[in-house]
Amino acid sequence: MRPGRSLRPHVKAFKSTELARHLAGRGNHQAFCCATMREMEGMADAGLGDDLLLANETLAADRLGNLVAAGTGRITVAVDSDETVAVAVAAARRGPLAVLIDVNVGLPRCGCRPDDAGRLAVRARAAGLEVRGVMGYEGHVVGNPDRTWRIEQMSDSMSMLRVAHDAVGGDVISAGGTGTYDLHDWATEVQAGSYLLMDTAYQQLGLPFRQALFVEATIISVHGDEWAVADAGLKSFGMDHGAPTVLDRELFFSSDEHTTFGFADSPAPAVGDRVRMVPAHVDPTVAYHERMLVVSDGDVVDEWRVDLRNW
Amino acid sequence: MRPGRSLRPHVKAFKSTELARHLAGRGNHQAFCCATMREMEGMADAGLGDDLLLANETLAADRLGNLVAAGTGRITVAVDSDETVAVAVAAARRGPLAVLIDVNVGLPRCGCRPDDAGRLAVRARAAGLEVRGVMGYEGHVVGNPDRTWRIEQMSDSMSMLRVAHDAVGGDVISAGGTGTYDLHDWATEVQAGSYLLMDTAYQQLGLPFRQALFVEATIISVHGDEWAVADAGLKSFGMDHGAPTVLDRELFFSSDEHTTFGFADSPAPAVGDRVRMVPAHVDPTVAYHERMLVVSDGDVVDEWRVDLRNW
Repeated sequence: MRPGRSLRPHVKAFKSTELARHLAGRGNHQAFCCATMREMEGMADAGLGDDLLLANETLAADRLGNLVAAGTGRITVAVDSDETVAVAVAAARRGPLAVLIDVNVGLPRCGCRPDDAGRLAVRARAAGLEVRGVMGYEGHVVGNPDRTWRIEQMSDSMSMLRVAHDAVGGDVISAGGTGTYDLHDWATEVQAGSYLLMDTAYQQLGLPFRQALFVEATIISVHGDEWAVADAGLKSFGMDHGAPTVLDRELFFSSDEHTTFGFADSPAPAVGDRVRMVPAHVDPTVAYHERMLVVSDGDVVDEWRVDLRNW
Repeated sequence: MRPGRSLRPHVKAFKSTELARHLAGRGNHQAFCCATMREMEGMADAGLGDDLLLANETLAADRLGNLVAAGTGRITVAVDSDETVAVAVAAARRGPLAVLIDVNVGLPRCGCRPDDAGRLAVRARAAGLEVRGVMGYEGHVVGNPDRTWRIEQMSDSMSMLRVAHDAVGGDVISAGGTGTYDLHDWATEVQAGSYLLMDTAYQQLGLPFRQALFVEATIISVHGDEWAVADAGLKSFGMDHGAPTVLDRELFFSSDEHTTFGFADSPAPAVGDRVRMVPAHVDPTVAYHERMLVVSDGDVVDEWRVDLRNW
């Protein structure tokens, strides 16, 4: 499987309708997936709602109902329990809504047991919902640098998803992420987002995606040959996967609005110089920023608002 | 020293003019400090600019000039180099601007060497700037749970700041944070912010400040007696000091929009229940949110926008 129609870009990784519009134009993507209702609503409002999947559970029946009532395109939502099926049923009174049965394939998070998927599908169909198929996110697999391990674990996960799909039916088998995008041979679509901007965690996997996102900061203080301080810190970087990397320099530490770094055998910078940093985890990094500057050959050629932040 | 006139609340910890207005009204605080130009501009625009200190270095001469030109109140900025003095001089052409000489007192971040402070003060005064005094942030001390160690280290830091103040002069000696607020006997003002909302890192210090900030999330998926999933994750919590705490439950892990937790001998929750979480670090947690709900006796009585995010 290669990106194309079988790739459903995940909006959670970049939270920007302007970047999504770029994907729609350059990549001919009309189908996107989202993690929050705000992402769903924002994509629909921006005219990018041809085929939106909320790849997450929600209890926001009113907001989901408003979305389907607006008639902006095909809306599908993941369900994994009687309660989330009931939410979908309530929303579907306002307009057409389809569901995927979300199946736990090894990551202890959302998703029903594989042997409960058929029951939920019956329940959903009995209530009048269209059940398009199944979804199973092998989130415990996608980030591991060992490709052989990823292949084995993904095979186990897809075996679980097959059990569920046998009971549920439907045309859609939605799975995967950036770390398994080229390993799937059975899923009908891959949910990937990090591949677009990348981070140092995914860089370790040796994937054919270049780092596209940098936080560029200004050096505001230089201390002889010992260290310098840039004006971007813990409020600029998702830190759960570790600290950012300062290009060509040696990170000391980040605090709220600062990053202190050593010079790693390079000449000391000057106050006012700029420095580039790469986040360890792209999604919660982008969520701190209100805009991304698009740089081509050193020039800022566009600005994309991060307009889908918050919930 | 006790809070009162000698406390200069640090806006970086809450980034909200509405919370600052609450402090101005209830705490009679007219003097605040900020970490970013956006915080400075937002406080001034909101009518809270009587006495604002940018406790950080900036190269944004234009924005600083616009701020002093607006004439909203007393503006002071930290400087630690010839370059940042030059920025202050440029901005001061547009309106009255004072500076503090920022001194490195042991944290490898901004601040000049103590023995360079006098030279910078002479340079600043020769250029026509008012030099109000010195600033030294013992950021390497404030978070350590060992009070005796904090006292010793702070004493060392203040010895460095005394050297600088002897050379600089001026009425202002600005230092400290939540972890050292009651240890200072020489500084004229303490910069503290975390005390207002608190986090689990500062809780370990046994300070007389209650946890006031919680992230309340909805449980969207429950898995028998094993785990449940709440809809707040890495985009809701600053993670540099560690993972959030799920009250009365056992945290498994957080991912972008989810937190999975076990039940810690309590009954399993239901889908739709709410759960409260406490961040490990308050400042980068608040910076992810667009508003805070003010809860009194279980009722939402007000909403404070986090309007000073970004830069």
